Amino acid sequence: MGSDSDLPVMRKAADILHDFDVPFEIRVMSAHRTPDAAHRYATTAHQRGLKVLIAGAGVAAHLGGILAASTPLPVLGVPIQSGALQGLDALLATVQMPSGIPVGTLAINGSKNAALLAIQILATSDNGLQKRLLAYKADMVRQVEAKNARVQSEMGL
Amino acid sequence: MGSDSDLPVMRKAADILHDFDVPFEIRVMSAHRTPDAAHRYATTAHQRGLKVLIAGAGVAAHLGGILAASTPLPVLGVPIQSGALQGLDALLATVQMPSGIPVGTLAINGSKNAALLAIQILATSDNGLQKRLLAYKADMVRQVEAKNARVQSEMGL
Amino acid sequence: MGSDSDLPVMRKAADILHDFDVPFEIRVMSAHRTPDAAHRYATTAHQRGLKVLIAGAGVAAHLGGILAASTPLPVLGVPIQSGALQGLDALLATVQMPSGIPVGTLAINGSKNAALLAIQILATSDNGLQKRLLAYKADMVRQVEAKNARVQSEMGL
Amino acid sequence: MGSDSDLPVMRKAADILHDFDVPFEIRVMSAHRTPDAAHRYATTAHQRGLKVLIAGAGVAAHLGGILAASTPLPVLGVPIQSGALQGLDALLATVQMPSGIPVGTLAINGSKNAALLAIQILATSDNGLQKRLLAYKADMVRQVEAKNARVQSEMGL
Amino acid sequence: MGSDSDLPVMRKAADILHDFDVPFEIRVMSAHRTPDAAHRYATTAHQRGLKVLIAGAGVAAHLGGILAASTPLPVLGVPIQSGALQGLDALLATVQMPSGIPVGTLAINGSKNAALLAIQILATSDNGLQKRLLAYKADMVRQVEAKNARVQSEMGL
Amino acid sequence: MGSDSDLPVMRKAADILHDFDVPFEIRVMSAHRTPDAAHRYATTAHQRGLKVLIAGAGVAAHLGGILAASTPLPVLGVPIQSGALQGLDALLATVQMPSGIPVGTLAINGSKNAALLAIQILATSDNGLQKRLLAYKADMVRQVEAKNARVQSEMGL
Amino acid sequence: MGSDSDLPVMRKAADILHDFDVPFEIRVMSAHRTPDAAHRYATTAHQRGLKVLIAGAGVAAHLGGILAASTPLPVLGVPIQSGALQGLDALLATVQMPSGIPVGTLAINGSKNAALLAIQILATSDNGLQKRLLAYKADMVRQVEAKNARVQSEMGL
Amino acid sequence: MGSDSDLPVMRKAADILHDFDVPFEIRVMSAHRTPDAAHRYATTAHQRGLKVLIAGAGVAAHLGGILAASTPLPVLGVPIQSGALQGLDALLATVQMPSGIPVGTLAINGSKNAALLAIQILATSDNGLQKRLLAYKADMVRQVEAKNARVQSEMGL
Repeated sequence: MGSDSDLPVMRKAADILHDFDVPFEIRVMSAHRTPDAAHRYATTAHQRGLKVLIAGAGVAAHLGGILAASTPLPVLGVPIQSGALQGLDALLATVQMPSGIPVGTLAINGSKNAALLAIQILATSDNGLQKRLLAYKADMVRQVEAKNARVQSEMGL
Repeated sequence: MGSDSDLPVMRKAADILHDFDVPFEIRVMSAHRTPDAAHRYATTAHQRGLKVLIAGAGVAAHLGGILAASTPLPVLGVPIQSGALQGLDALLATVQMPSGIPVGTLAINGSKNAALLAIQILATSDNGLQKRLLAYKADMVRQVEAKNARVQSEMGL
Repeated sequence: MGSDSDLPVMRKAADILHDFDVPFEIRVMSAHRTPDAAHRYATTAHQRGLKVLIAGAGVAAHLGGILAASTPLPVLGVPIQSGALQGLDALLATVQMPSGIPVGTLAINGSKNAALLAIQILATSDNGLQKRLLAYKADMVRQVEAKNARVQSEMGL
Repeated sequence: MGSDSDLPVMRKAADILHDFDVPFEIRVMSAHRTPDAAHRYATTAHQRGLKVLIAGAGVAAHLGGILAASTPLPVLGVPIQSGALQGLDALLATVQMPSGIPVGTLAINGSKNAALLAIQILATSDNGLQKRLLAYKADMVRQVEAKNARVQSEMGL
Repeated sequence: MGSDSDLPVMRKAADILHDFDVPFEIRVMSAHRTPDAAHRYATTAHQRGLKVLIAGAGVAAHLGGILAASTPLPVLGVPIQSGALQGLDALLATVQMPSGIPVGTLAINGSKNAALLAIQILATSDNGLQKRLLAYKADMVRQVEAKNARVQSEMGL
Repeated sequence: MGSDSDLPVMRKAADILHDFDVPFEIRVMSAHRTPDAAHRYATTAHQRGLKVLIAGAGVAAHLGGILAASTPLPVLGVPIQSGALQGLDALLATVQMPSGIPVGTLAINGSKNAALLAIQILATSDNGLQKRLLAYKADMVRQVEAKNARVQSEMGL
Repeated sequence: MGSDSDLPVMRKAADILHDFDVPFEIRVMSAHRTPDAAHRYATTAHQRGLKVLIAGAGVAAHLGGILAASTPLPVLGVPIQSGALQGLDALLATVQMPSGIPVGTLAINGSKNAALLAIQILATSDNGLQKRLLAYKADMVRQVEAKNARVQSEMGL
Repeated sequence: MGSDSDLPVMRKAADILHDFDVPFEIRVMSAHRTPDAAHRYATTAHQRGLKVLIAGAGVAAHLGGILAASTPLPVLGVPIQSGALQGLDALLATVQMPSGIPVGTLAINGSKNAALLAIQILATSDNGLQKRLLAYKADMVRQVEAKNARVQSEMGL
C-alpha cells in the first residue's frame, strides 16, 4: 500500500487471505516517496516466490503501475477513496494502463475483492483452494437468503 | 464477448494468446440476450479445465459480473468503448463490483492487457511462461529504445 | 433489492404501493451473490401473476438488467446511492442497457417514483387506479400551494 | 420528440411498435418552444385512450418531465445524444426527476428499448402481446447464437 | 423556487434585493408538481409588470426552462445542490437550454449572484441603481482589503 | 470573444442582434493575452453607453469573469466547445463564479441564446422590443408545428 | 489566495517555505473582487524581486490565470476544494489555460506541493537549496520506512 | 515523452524552446515499459546540469510522477489527449500527486505552455530571458489586436 493511511481499507484484504489460509506479506511503499524500494520490491518479487501483488493507493495512484512495470507477476490494483475526487482519480490512474503493462483493477476501496481475485488466481493451480472458493460462494448464497428472510419478517410480508 | 461487434477490439487478446502459445476459446454470449448460455458457461467453465475468463462488453457491461457470479475462476473484464459515453459506463459497470464477486478490470478497450494478465496468471504455476513474459518485457524495452532513437534522429538531436 | 442495506431506500416504494392498495412482495436477491435465485425469480415471475418488477441496487448495479434478461415483464431500476461514486456508477449500470433489454430507470434513490411508475403501468388497464393517480396529482398541487403560502408568510410577503 | 432532428433516433421506436402491430402516433412538440401544445397533449392523452407516452429529447431534455407533470399515464424518456456533452446532460435532465413525477428513462439514444418497454407495459394486460415478447426474446437468443457461430468460424476455432 | 426546501438557498437572493431596495415576490411552484401554476405565472408575469424572473430548482431542474418557455422576460436559473449528484444534474438541466429559450444560469447555489444579476439588468435602465452597484463593488474591494490585512497580521507578516 | 477562432460560434449572436435591429459591437480580446485591453473595456463599457456584455470563450474561460469583475453591466457568458474536454471546462469556468460577481451563463456554444437573453434584458425597458420577442416566440411555435406536420407526412401517419 | 477562507489550505504552503527558510509574502486578493489589485500585483511582482507566484483559489478559479496574464514569472495554481463540485471546477479553471499563458497546476488543495515546486524552481539556481531538497526526499524515505515498520508490527507480521 | 506517438503534441514544446534559444534534449521513455531508463534518467538529470523536466504522457500518465519521485528538479507534466477518455485520465493521473512530490501540470495537450513555463523558470535567474518573455507577451497583444481588426472588418463593423 502507498501509505499507512490506506491500512483501514487494505486490512480487509489481509482478513480474507487469513480466512483462506493464504500466506501474505504487507509493505508500505510508495511509487513516489520510496521509488527505489518499490522498484526493488517489484523486480525481485517473483524470485522470492511471491505469486500475486496487490497494490492499494489513492489520488494519482501509480503504485500498481510501477509494480507491474517491473514484475512478471499479476498485479491487482485497489484505488483508495481519498481527497477531493473521492477515488475517481485513483481509479483512472490505476485502470487506464497502456498496452503491455496490465493492472487488474478492482472497485474503489475494493480490497476484499482484490484478495478474493488473488485467491482465485492461486486456485487456478490449487484444487483445494478452488473448492474453498466454491464453498465461499455457497456461503454467500446462504447469507443473502438469511437477509431476505429477515427483510420479509421486518416488512411483515 | 457480449456482441460480435466487440470482435475488432477483442481480437487483440486472441493475438497475444496466440503469440504466447496459450490455447483459448472465444464465445459470443450476452448477459442480457442469452442469460442461460452465459450462466451455463460460467458454472461449468472450471469443470471443463478453463483457467481464466476474459469478458469484453460495452455500455451497461454486465458480462464480467455475470460470469464472476457463477465461477470460481478469475474473471477479467474489458470495458468496450461504444455509445455516447465512450466506455465510461462500461468501465464503471465492470469495475465497481460488490464485495465477494471480483472482476479484474483492464482499461477501456484494453483487451491486449487482459490477455497479458491472463498469461501472467497462468505463469504463476508455469515457469516457462514466466520466462517468456520476462522476455516480452525485455522486448518492450528494446522497442521503446528504438522509438527513442528514431525520435532523436527525426528531431535532429 | 440487491442487499438488505438497500431497505431504507426501497421501503419508500413499499409505502407508496401500500397507500395505493397495490399488493406487492419484497425479495433480497443479488445478480452476483445469488445468480440462480435471481434467474429463477425472473423466469417465473410472469407465470406467478406478477405484473411489474422493481430492482434496486448500488455500485455496478446489474440486478435490473439480469431480471430484464429473463422476463417479459416491464422492469424498473432504482440506482442506489452508495460507495465512492455516490450512485453515478449504479445509474449508468442500470440505464445504459443494450438494445432488446430495457430497464426503465428512475433517479438515484428514486424508489418512490419507481412505485408510482409501477402504479401508472398497472393503471393502463385499471381505471380506478388511474383516478387515484389523478387524485394523487391534485393532492400534490395542494401541498405545493400550502408550502407556497407558508413561505409567503415566513418571508413576510 | 422535441425536434424533428430527433427523428433518426426515434424512428427505431416506431419500427419496433410497427413490428409488434402496436398502434402509435408521433408528434414533434417541445417543452420549451411549444409549451402550450405539450401541456395540452399531456393533459388529454389518457382521455384519448393513449396508454404510454415516450418522450425523446436532447440537451436540457425537459419533454419527459413536462409530459409526466400533466398525465396519469406512464412516461418513458429517451435522452438524445446531441451537443457538446453527447447526451449526458439529456440523461440527467430526464432521469433525475423529483419525487412524485416519474419518468422511466432508457439509455442515451435508447429509443428501441423505449418501444419495447412500452410493449411490455401494454402486455401486462394483454397475454397475446406477452407471448410475442417471449418469442422476441427467443429470437434474440438465436441471433446471438448465429453471431457466435460466425465468430467461431471467422477466428478459425 | 421549486420547493420550500430551496428556501435556505434562495433567501440570499431576497436579502440582496432587499439591500438594494428592489421590490420582489417569492413563489413556491414546481414545473412538475404544479405545471398549471408555473405556466400561468410565466405567461402573465410581464403583464403584471415583473421585469426579471429567478428560478431556483434542484435535480432535473426544469423550472427555469419552463418559465423561459412562456415569458418574454429574462429568466435567471439557480441550480440547487441536492441529491446524490450534488447539483451537477441541476446545473446541466438549467444551462443546456436549446436555441430560442435562454436561461441565464448562475453557479450551483448561486442565488445571491442571481439577485445581483437581476439588479444589473434593472440598472440598464436605472442610473441610480447602477451607481449603487458601483458602490457595492467598491465595498467588496474594501472587504477584501480588510481580509488581507487580517491574514497578514494573523500570519505575522 | 477570447479568440478569432470563436467567431463561427459567436456569429450567431450577431445574426440575432441584427434580426432584432439591436446595435452591437464585436471585439476580440483575451482575459489572458490582452488583460489590459479587457480591463479597460470592462471599466469603461457602461460609460460608453453599452447595456449588456456577452463573453464567448473556451477552455479555462475567464473572459466573462474578468469583464464582470470591472463593470456594473450584466455580463452573459458563452462557453465555447473546444479542446479535449469539449467545453465542459469552459462551462464550469464561466458559471461557477464566486458571490458578488455574476456571469449569466448560457449553454456550451449557446451564442444565439446569449443574444436573445441580451434582447430580453433590453426589452425590460423597451416595450417595442418585448412585443418583437413575443412575435419571435409565436414564430417558433409555427416552425415546430410545420416540422410536426412534415414528420407526420414523412412517417405516413 | 482568492479569499481568506482559503487560508487553512494555503497555510501549508507557508509552513513548507518557512521550513526551507525561503522568504515569502501572502496576499488575499481576488481576480473578481479586486481586479485592480491583482493586476497591479502581477505587473509589478518581477520588478519587486519576487521569483515565483502561487495562486490558491476555488470554484471558477481565475486568480492563477489573471496573475499569469500580466507577469513573466512562473505562476503555480492550487485549486481549492469548495462548493458543490468539490474543486473539480477549480482544477479545470486553473489547469486548462490557453496557449501562451501557463499556470503550473497542483492537485486540488495541493498547497504544500506548490511550495515544494516553488522551492524546486528557486533551486535551479541555488545549489544549497537543491541539496536541502535531496535531504527532504531522503527524509521522506525514512518516514515511509518507519510507517512500514509500524504497519508490520501492528499486523503482527 | 512516454511514447513516440506523443511527438506531434510535444513537438510544440521543442519549437518554443528553439524560438527562445533554450537548449534541450528529447527522450522517449516510459514509466511502465522502460522503468529502469526512466529511473536512471530522473536520478541523474540534475547531475548532468538539466534544470527542468517536462513529461508528456497519456492515459494512466505516470511519467511525470515517476520523474518527480527521483529528482530534485521541477517537473512539469503534459497530459496527452488519447484513448476513450480523451485525456481526462491523463490529467488526473498527472495533477493529483500526493504531498511531497509535485508535478506542475499544464492543460491537456498543453506542451507549448509547458515549454513557456520552463522558460519562465529558467528566467527566474536569467534577466535576459525574462526580457524576452516580456517581449513575447507584448507580441501576443499585437497578435490579438490584429485578429480583432480582422474580425471587425470581416463583420463589417
